[in-house]
Amino acid sequence: MPTRSREVRLASRPHGEPTLDNFSFATVYLPDPVPGEVLVRNLCMSVDPYMRGRMNEGKSYVPPFEVGKTLEGGAIGRVISSQDASLPEGTIVQSIYGWREAFIAPASKVQIVDAKVATPSTYLGILGVTGLTAWVGLFRIANLKQGETIFISGAAGAVGSAACQLAKLHGCHVIASAGSAEKIAYLQNELKVDYAFNYRDGEPLDHLKKAAPEGIHVFFDNTGGPQLEAALSILRPFGRVAMCGGVAGYNTPVPGPRNLILVVSKRLRLEGFIISDYFKELPAFRAETIPALQSGKLSNRETFVDGLDAAPAAFLDLLHSGAHNIGKMIVKLSD
Amino acid sequence: MPTRSREVRLASRPHGEPTLDNFSFATVYLPDPVPGEVLVRNLCMSVDPYMRGRMNEGKSYVPPFEVGKTLEGGAIGRVISSQDASLPEGTIVQSIYGWREAFIAPASKVQIVDAKVATPSTYLGILGVTGLTAWVGLFRIANLKQGETIFISGAAGAVGSAACQLAKLHGCHVIASAGSAEKIAYLQNELKVDYAFNYRDGEPLDHLKKAAPEGIHVFFDNTGGPQLEAALSILRPFGRVAMCGGVAGYNTPVPGPRNLILVVSKRLRLEGFIISDYFKELPAFRAETIPALQSGKLSNRETFVDGLDAAPAAFLDLLHSGAHNIGKMIVKLSD
Repeated sequence: MPTRSREVRLASRPHGEPTLDNFSFATVYLPDPVPGEVLVRNLCMSVDPYMRGRMNEGKSYVPPFEVGKTLEGGAIGRVISSQDASLPEGTIVQSIYGWREAFIAPASKVQIVDAKVATPSTYLGILGVTGLTAWVGLFRIANLKQGETIFISGAAGAVGSAACQLAKLHGCHVIASAGSAEKIAYLQNELKVDYAFNYRDGEPLDHLKKAAPEGIHVFFDNTGGPQLEAALSILRPFGRVAMCGGVAGYNTPVPGPRNLILVVSKRLRLEGFIISDYFKELPAFRAETIPALQSGKLSNRETFVDGLDAAPAAFLDLLHSGAHNIGKMIVKLSD
Repeated sequence: MPTRSREVRLASRPHGEPTLDNFSFATVYLPDPVPGEVLVRNLCMSVDPYMRGRMNEGKSYVPPFEVGKTLEGGAIGRVISSQDASLPEGTIVQSIYGWREAFIAPASKVQIVDAKVATPSTYLGILGVTGLTAWVGLFRIANLKQGETIFISGAAGAVGSAACQLAKLHGCHVIASAGSAEKIAYLQNELKVDYAFNYRDGEPLDHLKKAAPEGIHVFFDNTGGPQLEAALSILRPFGRVAMCGGVAGYNTPVPGPRNLILVVSKRLRLEGFIISDYFKELPAFRAETIPALQSGKLSNRETFVDGLDAAPAAFLDLLHSGAHNIGKMIVKLSD
């Protein structure tokens, strides 16, 4: 009996800022799985800023989405029909088959997650690629050491809020920026960062000078733009910048920092990374992070939107410096 | 009997581009050395772009020059009077007491160089801090590997010409840029780089695409500015940028690269360095480089100006993208 599933497709490539018109919806009917396959109903899916890059044509670190084809992205689902003994019905799995209500895939294309440890959506957030991104940026790229001072931009977002918590757990002095009073309150009251500021409220550099009179050791850059320029000004000698994203420039190019010459005089290191290079570390990362989550040392704040129809707007919202999500943006697809 | 010496002092700090008015000359009379000291007559001195930074007030990686005080910089001299047994008269020594004809210093403040191996000025060029800068940038910062493709800007200058030669010796494909037909001819005919272009002649990116259709692995950045932007565009995934200088922005800030977001998507690493952090490696570097120089695999092209009076103008010339020197700029002070 075919299973009905709705999907989101790329209707057209955006020029500059994407709009809802760049997305279309389609309904498909999935056949029963054949041996070696599973049929999965998605419980929730992830929307992430990096997907903006896949909407463009041309070579990048992940292949571009194709016009007319279903989008992809992280998702957690439940096996509802199985032709593979390792994945009995009811198993909760993660996959990259987001942007759709259900799918059929070879068993090798999905990975079991432990639903007893955390809710399914947690595996898209602090225990998922989001948390891994924060962890890799802090400890593999920036080489953050205990006691150091770190500035994290976009700090109330999915990756930023994970980075704040992991840096605090590591015994660091954390300065965090975001773009609304509600987000600042979250950073101060829930994440207990040492200094939080609204980057629209005065000059970022003035805040940083106040928060770190001796300068910062590390900048975890989720935004690019003027905050990067301010961070370069206040980085200490041998400072490191983990370049994780550049929301400020996703849709249209922004001017580069005018003080890049400081990279020479202060011997700075700026390094970009792509989390798919580190997927093999997800199990090790989870083994380290799950106990902290279970003991309450880490939290997984989420902003939910309901249903596939809401997914494109939720995604578009992430691309604005005034994104409405606090923590991880999750699209709920079924219970 | 006092020894007469003329010196160059910082008359005033420049605002933007320095001029000859920022320098003044003074004549001093040096006493005889006391035990533990030597009196040295300088044979030649170095002028280097980094000195521009020391003309500014404020914290930097080296203390600023002080208004009214004698400038400093690399120099090679001959001991003409000694009160230290390890440095007999006639010994050729290097020091940081440039910008003057003669000086007195404790023996510990000068280092012997082997005048049988190379001419004195070579120890300011390919065998000196200049050569070490190229070597550190290539092999310690950029981690250049045999067979890789490297782009070197400011390639006809002191550090650039050393970097071109060391990269060629290392079995790399070398693309080099400079700002005049004479410099391009030097890069092509004497340094035998694989592709040389005048960065004022068309778009740097067009040249780079022609010279490296598969992209470049490393950019050795002596200039900053538009050539850095072009390099970011054509760097391959996991490419490295050794940020050695930014002549384009020494006097006035220049806009940063508009495509800095590529650092994320291509997982690039940009790293600055200051050669004084690596001075302890000078003996090891020389041990490796002297045989290559003696066998003719390395050359030490120099541009000479004569006499201390010519030093300020020679220095100012280095700060322009149209600097007239090919190879190392040397101010001759005595024979």
